[in-house]
Amino acid sequence: MQVQPIGIVHSAFKECQGMPVQPTRACGAVGTVRLFDEFVAGLKDLAGFERIWLLYWLHRARPAQMSVTPFLDKLPHGLFATRTPARPNPIGLSHVRLWEVKGATLHVSDLDICDGTPLLDIKPYVPQFDCVAVTRCGWLDTAAPTTGVADGRFEQIGVKNI
Amino acid sequence: MQVQPIGIVHSAFKECQGMPVQPTRACGAVGTVRLFDEFVAGLKDLAGFERIWLLYWLHRARPAQMSVTPFLDKLPHGLFATRTPARPNPIGLSHVRLWEVKGATLHVSDLDICDGTPLLDIKPYVPQFDCVAVTRCGWLDTAAPTTGVADGRFEQIGVKNI
Repeated sequence: MQVQPIGIVHSAFKECQGMPVQPTRACGAVGTVRLFDEFVAGLKDLAGFERIWLLYWLHRARPAQMSVTPFLDKLPHGLFATRTPARPNPIGLSHVRLWEVKGATLHVSDLDICDGTPLLDIKPYVPQFDCVAVTRCGWLDTAAPTTGVADGRFEQIGVKNI
Repeated sequence: MQVQPIGIVHSAFKECQGMPVQPTRACGAVGTVRLFDEFVAGLKDLAGFERIWLLYWLHRARPAQMSVTPFLDKLPHGLFATRTPARPNPIGLSHVRLWEVKGATLHVSDLDICDGTPLLDIKPYVPQFDCVAVTRCGWLDTAAPTTGVADGRFEQIGVKNI
């Protein structure tokens, strides 16, 4: 089970430290997604969607640990109860605002992704599929306020962009 | 860039044909997710969340084609403007209702995943992060009504469960 990059995310975040933790906190952070040539034909009709999901390879993340203290709390939790980047399969998930598709390049905003991140997939964001109300959000319901930005705790040192 | 299964999804859908196309259409479809032993400690605190995202390996999907006619329309579209399972990196994304965490087993519903599918990741579903209103959903806004269930068009023949 191998994955291959289909493109690269370009953002202003050259380091993970100081990044917004979720897209909803990243309003105004613009960037681009550049697809490799062989996948550009798959972008047809994507411009009709206001938002898109990006799935990407968290290439700077440390190896996973089963208990983590996430950016948004001061207490440790099970890894799968958090959105920490250090996961057994380091696949990130963010929805971004899509402004323009120009050839192989997507112009996007609300981007909470580190510059140089390998892209794995694009899916249309569809509230009818993706949005549902819930009454409970676990530890997030009672977490103490934090800065809401990332620090280096889940980052490997010296990882190069591809 | 290799991914490894962290568990297996068990559902009533032994074949992809006839499956609901999105979790919001799969109300009542119950099933289980069984994690492999080394990942069970990562489930701590997950039970506090009413819904969870499952990321999984679409192991029965055919190789990707850049133009596809999706289950929910009668016209072809660019692959990335659809949620078809046949993708360059066949990673599926569904949110399901989490009813109980019992050891290595999650009891879930609203499951639109084929039985035996390898699980890649679990993330908490957080409306504050995951839900946002949009004004446009591309071709889905004007698609002709379809059955809303899957057929075999994106499925490889003879793929075995792991």
